Amino acid sequence: MKQVILTGDRPTGRLHVGHYVGSLKRRVDLQNSGKYDEIYIMVADAQALTDNAEHPEKVRQNIMQVALDYLACGIDPEKSTIFIQSMVPELTELTFYYMNLVTVARVQRNPTVKAEIKMRNFEASIPVGFFCYPISQAADITAFKATEVPVGEDQMPMIEQCKEIVHKFNSVYGETLVDPKIVLPDNEACLRLPGTDGKAKMSKSLGNCIYLSEDPADIKKKVMSMYTDPNHIRVEDPGQIEGNSVFTYLDAFSKPEYFEEFLPDYSGMDELKEHYTRGGLGDVKVKKFLNNVLQAELAPIRERRQMWEKRPQDVYDILKSGSEVARAKAAETLADVRRAMKIDYFENDNLFK
Amino acid sequence: MKQVILTGDRPTGRLHVGHYVGSLKRRVDLQNSGKYDEIYIMVADAQALTDNAEHPEKVRQNIMQVALDYLACGIDPEKSTIFIQSMVPELTELTFYYMNLVTVARVQRNPTVKAEIKMRNFEASIPVGFFCYPISQAADITAFKATEVPVGEDQMPMIEQCKEIVHKFNSVYGETLVDPKIVLPDNEACLRLPGTDGKAKMSKSLGNCIYLSEDPADIKKKVMSMYTDPNHIRVEDPGQIEGNSVFTYLDAFSKPEYFEEFLPDYSGMDELKEHYTRGGLGDVKVKKFLNNVLQAELAPIRERRQMWEKRPQDVYDILKSGSEVARAKAAETLADVRRAMKIDYFENDNLFK
Repeated sequence: MKQVILTGDRPTGRLHVGHYVGSLKRRVDLQNSGKYDEIYIMVADAQALTDNAEHPEKVRQNIMQVALDYLACGIDPEKSTIFIQSMVPELTELTFYYMNLVTVARVQRNPTVKAEIKMRNFEASIPVGFFCYPISQAADITAFKATEVPVGEDQMPMIEQCKEIVHKFNSVYGETLVDPKIVLPDNEACLRLPGTDGKAKMSKSLGNCIYLSEDPADIKKKVMSMYTDPNHIRVEDPGQIEGNSVFTYLDAFSKPEYFEEFLPDYSGMDELKEHYTRGGLGDVKVKKFLNNVLQAELAPIRERRQMWEKRPQDVYDILKSGSEVARAKAAETLADVRRAMKIDYFENDNLFK
Repeated sequence: MKQVILTGDRPTGRLHVGHYVGSLKRRVDLQNSGKYDEIYIMVADAQALTDNAEHPEKVRQNIMQVALDYLACGIDPEKSTIFIQSMVPELTELTFYYMNLVTVARVQRNPTVKAEIKMRNFEASIPVGFFCYPISQAADITAFKATEVPVGEDQMPMIEQCKEIVHKFNSVYGETLVDPKIVLPDNEACLRLPGTDGKAKMSKSLGNCIYLSEDPADIKKKVMSMYTDPNHIRVEDPGQIEGNSVFTYLDAFSKPEYFEEFLPDYSGMDELKEHYTRGGLGDVKVKKFLNNVLQAELAPIRERRQMWEKRPQDVYDILKSGSEVARAKAAETLADVRRAMKIDYFENDNLFK
């Protein structure tokens, strides 16, 4: 069986370091591993519209931004198909038929849906489209016959729901859909990077994210004002690592070579943490190190982004041809689905039977 | 503005006299009135699948039956476009985007959805697709820019929901969709014909419907065992008209000429009812009259049906070319919708804005 990856992001804002360590970096590694036959990366505009129906311009304007972030991180359009969800109408048709295989009660029990509804203060006024997005996501995954879906841990219930739909479809209509596997980040700190203010969720409105397109001065400013241990007041005080954003970011980004380059007094993270816990290591020193690390990690991304920003027509063409490739693949799956459901009336003599 | 009709039926069984007086007869009249520019009649297989996902063959097998019933009643493929819903995938795409404009709570309040859920004993296990069918129906109606929707009274909340979606869409994305008007049967007895057993709902499993394809002997048998007034035991007893199926059927079907032909002792329905209420008129006499009326009404329908039954390939061709016409029209509307939502990225330079 072909090894296929499907992943993507909602275009509701530029991507930030949380997206990078939680998913983008991994995608690039997987892309370059040579282990996959096909890689699909979706700009999920249709999904973004489910809770932004009244602000389509916000979604539209972020499509190019997200595509630029992808290219900046090293997604290579020669190896990965970057496409726009709404340009693949086959996905809506699959969603429509999968909706018959899931009960309302089952979606209501989906922990991700529950959490998202709470986060958006939707309660009774959830749009039906938003409510149904686990089903739409199952359509996205299965349309490309994805075998692996690299996402954050918070998306696990979505993949569970997708697997249930696959099993239900295959048991009712016969073996048709491919059962996907979730691929989680292997570094625990990457699972959910906190905001620079220590809050669990990064959000534009809180101003607590470092964007991939952030300029060096702003990165430094954000790092130097980051949340650490509120009880670590004097340098000599013992400090706490747990819940300390600076250390979580270092766990996600630091590599041995960064110690050699920027902090040769320490052999690595263990020694640095030990000193901080014991007391005698100031926040400023650790933040300066983190700033150096982030600047080193983000500089090549920012430079590639600036290069692509000058070539908007090329980005457009990448999205356009990617969407054509994606559409052809989804159409194949849809034909399989219609054949399995025997709603391919004009392809054969099923109507006479 | 063009005058356009959209209507249709779920292919879950052959159509019966309830469908005929409640909707089919009216459609034929409207078709032949010459007042409409376009008439679309949909075999709603996709909608039928929302609560028959595990029995696709039942739906599939009834598509030809419903098409035969249409042709039998006098739907003329030269004047009306008969098509199969699932063959117009644009409808699923419209549904998908309309789902963002309706809240879960609003659908839950829809009286038709409530009643249907109760009728099907669904409760917590409603399939999401079934739950969303008012939205899917709004897609059907608006895709064809229908100005009039001739349906039964029980469908009024569905049309209300459709109108809400139209208003919401037009207010968010700009004037795009056409606001439809419901057209109810003008004869009250036709609004909801009861079963032959007096039950409000006709159903195959209860064996209480007279089908359009029913043979003369079976029509007679069903009429002669019809539910009347249970207290009207002897001929001389006064009888009750209200809730008496035989009279409801007569109200729906009888015409002055049938009295002349089959029951010349009476000037019309008023005199017949007056006699029955007073006492002295036996059920058998009234039933014989109803049988004559139904035989007269159904004979030409059955004959036309038998004629089309011998031409399955022609029926198939009618459905196929009708579906092509319907698809072209729905694609036009979808293009309008995409343009209004500005998700027509590859048609213009919206992505650069």
